[in-house]
Amino acid sequence: MGDESAGERTARAGSAGGMTRRALLVGLGAAGGAGAMFAAMGALGLAPDSQERSFTPPRRSDFALSGRASAEVVVLGAGVAGLTCAYELGKAGYECTVLEAADRIGGRNLTLRGGDRLPELGGRTQVAEFGEGVYFNAGPARIASWMVTMDYCRELGVPVEIFVNNNASAYIYTQGMAAPVRARTARADMYGYIAELLAKATDAGALDRTLTGDDRERLLEFLRHFGDIGRDLSYRGSDRRGFAVYPGAAAGTPLPGPSSLGEVLAAGTGRAITLDFGVDQAMPMFQPVGGMDAIVTALARAVGEDRIRTGARVTEIRNLPDGVEVVHSGGVTRADYCIAALPPHLLAGLRHNLGAQVTAALREPVADAAGKMGLEYGRRWWEIDDRIYGGITETDLDITHIWYPSHGYHGERGLVVGYYNIGAEAEAYGGLTHDERRDRALARGERIHGEKYRTELRSSVSVAWSRQPHIEGAWARFPFHGGGFALLQSPAGRVYFAGDWLSHLIAWQAGAMESARNAVTGLHRRVLATE
Amino acid sequence: MGDESAGERTARAGSAGGMTRRALLVGLGAAGGAGAMFAAMGALGLAPDSQERSFTPPRRSDFALSGRASAEVVVLGAGVAGLTCAYELGKAGYECTVLEAADRIGGRNLTLRGGDRLPELGGRTQVAEFGEGVYFNAGPARIASWMVTMDYCRELGVPVEIFVNNNASAYIYTQGMAAPVRARTARADMYGYIAELLAKATDAGALDRTLTGDDRERLLEFLRHFGDIGRDLSYRGSDRRGFAVYPGAAAGTPLPGPSSLGEVLAAGTGRAITLDFGVDQAMPMFQPVGGMDAIVTALARAVGEDRIRTGARVTEIRNLPDGVEVVHSGGVTRADYCIAALPPHLLAGLRHNLGAQVTAALREPVADAAGKMGLEYGRRWWEIDDRIYGGITETDLDITHIWYPSHGYHGERGLVVGYYNIGAEAEAYGGLTHDERRDRALARGERIHGEKYRTELRSSVSVAWSRQPHIEGAWARFPFHGGGFALLQSPAGRVYFAGDWLSHLIAWQAGAMESARNAVTGLHRRVLATE
Repeated sequence: MGDESAGERTARAGSAGGMTRRALLVGLGAAGGAGAMFAAMGALGLAPDSQERSFTPPRRSDFALSGRASAEVVVLGAGVAGLTCAYELGKAGYECTVLEAADRIGGRNLTLRGGDRLPELGGRTQVAEFGEGVYFNAGPARIASWMVTMDYCRELGVPVEIFVNNNASAYIYTQGMAAPVRARTARADMYGYIAELLAKATDAGALDRTLTGDDRERLLEFLRHFGDIGRDLSYRGSDRRGFAVYPGAAAGTPLPGPSSLGEVLAAGTGRAITLDFGVDQAMPMFQPVGGMDAIVTALARAVGEDRIRTGARVTEIRNLPDGVEVVHSGGVTRADYCIAALPPHLLAGLRHNLGAQVTAALREPVADAAGKMGLEYGRRWWEIDDRIYGGITETDLDITHIWYPSHGYHGERGLVVGYYNIGAEAEAYGGLTHDERRDRALARGERIHGEKYRTELRSSVSVAWSRQPHIEGAWARFPFHGGGFALLQSPAGRVYFAGDWLSHLIAWQAGAMESARNAVTGLHRRVLATE
Repeated sequence: MGDESAGERTARAGSAGGMTRRALLVGLGAAGGAGAMFAAMGALGLAPDSQERSFTPPRRSDFALSGRASAEVVVLGAGVAGLTCAYELGKAGYECTVLEAADRIGGRNLTLRGGDRLPELGGRTQVAEFGEGVYFNAGPARIASWMVTMDYCRELGVPVEIFVNNNASAYIYTQGMAAPVRARTARADMYGYIAELLAKATDAGALDRTLTGDDRERLLEFLRHFGDIGRDLSYRGSDRRGFAVYPGAAAGTPLPGPSSLGEVLAAGTGRAITLDFGVDQAMPMFQPVGGMDAIVTALARAVGEDRIRTGARVTEIRNLPDGVEVVHSGGVTRADYCIAALPPHLLAGLRHNLGAQVTAALREPVADAAGKMGLEYGRRWWEIDDRIYGGITETDLDITHIWYPSHGYHGERGLVVGYYNIGAEAEAYGGLTHDERRDRALARGERIHGEKYRTELRSSVSVAWSRQPHIEGAWARFPFHGGGFALLQSPAGRVYFAGDWLSHLIAWQAGAMESARNAVTGLHRRVLATE
């Protein structure tokens, strides 16, 4: 779902790579500096980074070559991890059965359309009333171009389009502001003053011990571009801020301002300005055309829908000497192997004979809360009135973000995400009824968009992921360096584990897919090696 | 065509606005500061900027109300300006005839597909050999969301999609580099060092005379986010740079580096990093689905194709006491009024009786050169090998840019723009045969993308706008503040002028459209006021 902080935290966890090619490169980098490194990468066809995938999918021919037979696998959970496991194994001829507790597949990959029902633990069931063509990606909603999710979209024939994750025309609103400011204006002012401060310090000689004469000239040249500062190195505003009336046949009418350096710093726009700097948030990002569940639909079709049993809630997992046995609400399923692709906090509560260490490891990850609300409007006022085509308004209100749709431009209707919040704010909204959530979100949004935000609303749906049956959390993370993460990368007997929570891309579908590939690779190697 | 420098220059030219509402706002801004201004704007429904259009299209009912009759108008040029004039006048019942010298309409709005012919003055005629579904926007290719072009797309039912004008995964390549660097890496390093320099200067008290204690704390907090610098305020690299191997089931493998501050500054990536900071380049930008000429096609359909005469090259324009007379290669056309929507440097060479001042004014604008090349590939290697989905690689080579397509993602084929250059570099390429241009562009691109850039090429087309018949320039600008720009805003007798060159959005279709609206407004007012 793109929790940027979790993503950056995860990515930071350091290297576990061990491929020969990688080792060669890292060695070269240390010995010869970046130049030698790039040259070597170029020679290897990797320049300047490989974006490679080390995964080799199991193939039917593997069995012919090795003389082994494929096996029966029971996969627990028809979320993205479980479906990816069944898909990759199925390509090689494994007999997979996928058990899913809910009456729908996809897990957190959930796209709601008109008529869809959304039950909630301890709450009422909402029914989406959206009009034709309107959908709400209640779970994951964006894909970074380097992620394996894109590979699956290509392989499965799921068409993709741009998700606008950064829009210079969107607003930033913090509680210190009299009115929202366009992202472009906030950025121009912040960069302008930053450039002025550093240019003047450089010019005054304050950095002469750090910079050579050449450095100094190059830095000043960069800062002039970066901040659009004047010859005297002062920032007095810039056309980059936008206009009160944009240029046309006549010249543009400038916006008032800028405010002083102190006011710009106090406005607190910094978080919003830097939000797309991480590798998992940088533009361009993508979404499947027509809804994120196109990935689930395509995976399920490739797996074979007859292999997926919905309404089958697992209660017990048993390793047997020659296989596995899974007890569920629809009966007992036996297989040669099992891949448990359920949320760890739910797995931890099942009866099993996998040992106390496994139980302890499954209890390490902590489920986080996240909530999202879809607000359907009969007029795309954000495009017509505000000239916002996709993107995100950042706020320090409890709604955190307002998302505008990255599809259906210039159409009749559209759906705005009225909040996407996490942690305590998500828990607070989750504790309310849907009507209360909606009224609170509308009150916040009105501060940015005015009365129409309430008066033009057609319908709404909200999801509180901690209250979703059979899921009970937005994502789960390992909050400390216990041994659980490493332990569960290996199977417990004949039971493998998979999920984004077992990857370095927590809260991303790509994490679920990469973890699934990892489990599949281990299982397939074992099957090929078994007498 | 999005010449960013021309755009920023134009936008800078100051205000010519005079509306009551604008004046009120500017007055408030001066008197009460930004706070009062925003509050007033909010009250007017304008917060925080209006993005308003002051244009009132002529309507049939205007004649009924005023008792006047509509008129006959001859429009010279079926480019975007001319077609927009005919479209807006036609809505109100004006009888328009559009004369176009070329055998096609659209002017610089030119989308080439397989089988299309591209003649060139003093050169050979190229024939595009592109496969099914491949197209090349040889002229304008992107639209900023605030531009009136978006309004016409909505009004005419031309579907739009995102044009990726900034891609963190694209490369930057300058001649000082051993190998190209990803835009995300260059940006992370530059921002990291900028943040380190300013944070350390701040921390050392060098800015204590400029900053309050609060400012200082807020600035340091911002710089930590902005540069991803450490507790000690030093930059040592960041995950934002990207990875040699991206995180998945395992953690990511870091890229080597970063290089030193001096090396980062010497690499000369600053221009590329700041390229989308202007209002006319900021993300998201847009393109019509299927090719930019969808706008031309829709305008022509609305105008009525029987009203457009191609192959009609104008040679003379005469004001008569009661109308206008236009002599062209197809005969003589008489009308009540004329709108001359030809390039100024071609208008200047026609016989006319509009007076010496008009001739002098038409000679002020100077036509600039620009060139573009479309390279068709049978495999989308930029997506598969490089993970670049749309966007632009910036270089300091004579190709200036390489553009990757913002549509057809994951398809079979695609078209890369091998160069888009202006000025002396465009003239140099323009002076070559197409084969020479292609070989030169491929040699440049190989330095960034390797051998496949040459070996996988299927076909190519190049346009040199200075050599396009009946156009002879990429755009024209007024290089000095003569009186020509102001003079030609008013009609010469019954002859009006229109074109992007008469707007503050030179080189943008929006400029042509805004200028057309200006001419139409003037003409219509006059017709309504005429006895």
